[in-house]
Amino acid sequence: MSERVLVQQLQSLPDGPVSVSGWVETVRDQKKVQFVILRDETGAVQLVNPATRELPEDADDAAKAALALTETISALTTGTFLTVTGALKHDERVKLGGVEIKIAGLDVAAAALPETPIAADSGLDKRMDWRFLDLRQRRNNLIFRIQTTLEHAMRTYWIERDYIEVHSPKLMASASESNAELFEVPYFEDKTAYLAQSPQFFKQMAQVAGFGKIFEIAPAFRADPSFTSRHATEFTSIDAEISWIDSHEDVAAMQEELLATAIAAVKQKHGAEIEELFGLEVQVPTLPFPRIPLAEAREIVKSRGYEIPRTDGDLDPEGERQISAYVEETYGHQFVFITDYHPEIRAFYHMRDEETGLTKSYDLLFKGVEITTGAQREHRVDILIEQAKEKGLEPEHLEFYLDFFRYGAPPHGGFGMGLARVLMLLLGQDSIREVTYLFRGPTRLAP
Amino acid sequence: MSERVLVQQLQSLPDGPVSVSGWVETVRDQKKVQFVILRDETGAVQLVNPATRELPEDADDAAKAALALTETISALTTGTFLTVTGALKHDERVKLGGVEIKIAGLDVAAAALPETPIAADSGLDKRMDWRFLDLRQRRNNLIFRIQTTLEHAMRTYWIERDYIEVHSPKLMASASESNAELFEVPYFEDKTAYLAQSPQFFKQMAQVAGFGKIFEIAPAFRADPSFTSRHATEFTSIDAEISWIDSHEDVAAMQEELLATAIAAVKQKHGAEIEELFGLEVQVPTLPFPRIPLAEAREIVKSRGYEIPRTDGDLDPEGERQISAYVEETYGHQFVFITDYHPEIRAFYHMRDEETGLTKSYDLLFKGVEITTGAQREHRVDILIEQAKEKGLEPEHLEFYLDFFRYGAPPHGGFGMGLARVLMLLLGQDSIREVTYLFRGPTRLAP
Repeated sequence: MSERVLVQQLQSLPDGPVSVSGWVETVRDQKKVQFVILRDETGAVQLVNPATRELPEDADDAAKAALALTETISALTTGTFLTVTGALKHDERVKLGGVEIKIAGLDVAAAALPETPIAADSGLDKRMDWRFLDLRQRRNNLIFRIQTTLEHAMRTYWIERDYIEVHSPKLMASASESNAELFEVPYFEDKTAYLAQSPQFFKQMAQVAGFGKIFEIAPAFRADPSFTSRHATEFTSIDAEISWIDSHEDVAAMQEELLATAIAAVKQKHGAEIEELFGLEVQVPTLPFPRIPLAEAREIVKSRGYEIPRTDGDLDPEGERQISAYVEETYGHQFVFITDYHPEIRAFYHMRDEETGLTKSYDLLFKGVEITTGAQREHRVDILIEQAKEKGLEPEHLEFYLDFFRYGAPPHGGFGMGLARVLMLLLGQDSIREVTYLFRGPTRLAP
Repeated sequence: MSERVLVQQLQSLPDGPVSVSGWVETVRDQKKVQFVILRDETGAVQLVNPATRELPEDADDAAKAALALTETISALTTGTFLTVTGALKHDERVKLGGVEIKIAGLDVAAAALPETPIAADSGLDKRMDWRFLDLRQRRNNLIFRIQTTLEHAMRTYWIERDYIEVHSPKLMASASESNAELFEVPYFEDKTAYLAQSPQFFKQMAQVAGFGKIFEIAPAFRADPSFTSRHATEFTSIDAEISWIDSHEDVAAMQEELLATAIAAVKQKHGAEIEELFGLEVQVPTLPFPRIPLAEAREIVKSRGYEIPRTDGDLDPEGERQISAYVEETYGHQFVFITDYHPEIRAFYHMRDEETGLTKSYDLLFKGVEITTGAQREHRVDILIEQAKEKGLEPEHLEFYLDFFRYGAPPHGGFGMGLARVLMLLLGQDSIREVTYLFRGPTRLAP
């Protein structure tokens, strides 16, 4: 038996015997000829078999085998995985890639039940129930190839610059962000563990440990009861943290270069297919990304006729869309850093500018949606304790974190970015559910 | 002020003004001259200052500043993070890299408390209490640079071969391995979630989804009350799964090539430093790794005079050391695949050989310790259900998993490998605690 070849290799092979493996996408069982569309992880190919519908009385073994093959093909169900050997033939009349395979032998690995529980036009929730079937769609497969390329380009960017990749623990003895949204896990000796909401404390720990520059791509957990298109109870968080910065600007400069590099890698490898399957052209962002202080952003939004209802001084989702629309119109840019947030709407560990009193932090918006918060962290323990108290936090509960800063600490900062949000926006999708391998939400824990 | 330079760059710079940032490793405060050893993430350098101990009556500003600098240096505590500007001077008499910096200015970022709670010879548990200080040691820093190189080489190996990187959920509605060792998480709507013990089911899901070849590097959780040097309640699991294999041998062939590639990358980048700091030479394994069927391995162990006490037919830790010693002596190899395990000591989803009835699976031992279980999986749902029942599992509780195989499935298999075990053995360490960023065990949940 010939070695398995991938469908995408067929066009470059000469006519002759081949073996392909994949699953049945469709069967057209015509009286005189049978067609099977077989898909694998690289593409689809047409298989063809001249049907043998009945046997003459003096049928030989070959004729009997031909009848059996015809009957096997007639009985094939959509989704059945199989290996087919046969003769590859180039034929420009074949729309699907200009090749077809005349079936010689067919080996079913596992047959599918005849009724497929979802169709291409099934609703999102139904598709998520049957995610393993939903992922067989070409564009869903592409999403995770894009994710792979995006992440690898980011990791490579960092590793070429001597960053250390860390795996910080997801089981913690206390909250990493706030006590809200915390999953509790009964632990040994009647203790309670908590699932990390972010690697915040532990990536800062790498800085006081003298690691210099680190990154982590790992799950984070939020017991978040919200049902928006961009929240999940478990998500993949992309985090970086670097030492010896002068301000959050050093973090922003790294992040914009990182994103431009990663998006360029995606465009180079998948740009054509994204255009075909998602109907959009990937835009590699120019550097630097525009920066707009929050107060100015609010003024701009207001001047566009939108009155932000929230009173805490932050943008709301519509405000984010408005400022992004402004940036797109004015600078032709899909990204914008919003800077200079008031301490009231930022975490206690954000460093504050001595002159303005505003935090040395930013949010990064991409196509109107926030994908990142970045900041310089307060590394002076006395100020850090004051800021924690100001937020109503009790320093006693933060001792293990505060200890990090009592034995020396460099100035440092970093960002956290939701992988699914980036993918969702990059591919023009409505929901992170579309770009998450298996989504987890308040009412979604399976499959 | 000059831009920060890394300590490792100093040797290649000309004499002249530089700026370095790091932490104080030691201060030698002699009467006439002060020496500070400053370490950053790349190395250590000697800083020097001619001491000014008292001022003449007509002291000028420069003299006053010199006195202040001397006093600042005298007060420096070990671990204090600071930036120093000064004049770089090459001097071959300086043991530490043949350069020193005459201090011109010194800026403390955050001073350390005077008493450092751990010393280089503190016990492991104490060092873990103060892991952020422990990680400042050069060899601990190196461990995580090695980890970064090892992982990146593995990811690159896979990505060059068109694997997809997945992030499977860690919150699950049911057990992925067995009901033992399961952390429970109270979830929404009075449901209970479980922390994934492995990505087993979800990496198999990628195969029925037609992804072809996938990998994942992510945390896995075991509510395992054991206190051995190689168990943790949370660990980083390296997983791969591939379709259209003929047997577990295809998985083993991929894994051995992967490991040889990754270890070669580590040796190339860090070999000299590993030799210096860990006193061992990294051995890049030759291909193929030796393979020994389990029954034969037990015979060999017996012939070496060790009687394995366990009666289930498996090797015990001493048996693993014995067979590895045999392989090292006989083949000069640090790795060995043990194959052909009896179904009784394997998971229900391991495929069985039709002729022998043994599972199509292996364990991989590295320097006498198991680091991996690999197998071909049973993809035929009827047989899978039978095998589950045989193990006392109730198929009703596995419905979501069994469904994967009802709509078509390719033959497939994969392996799971503990990152910390590989690192521990590669670097000749006694415990995974030494090579885990922040270890988690039954009595260890902090920092």
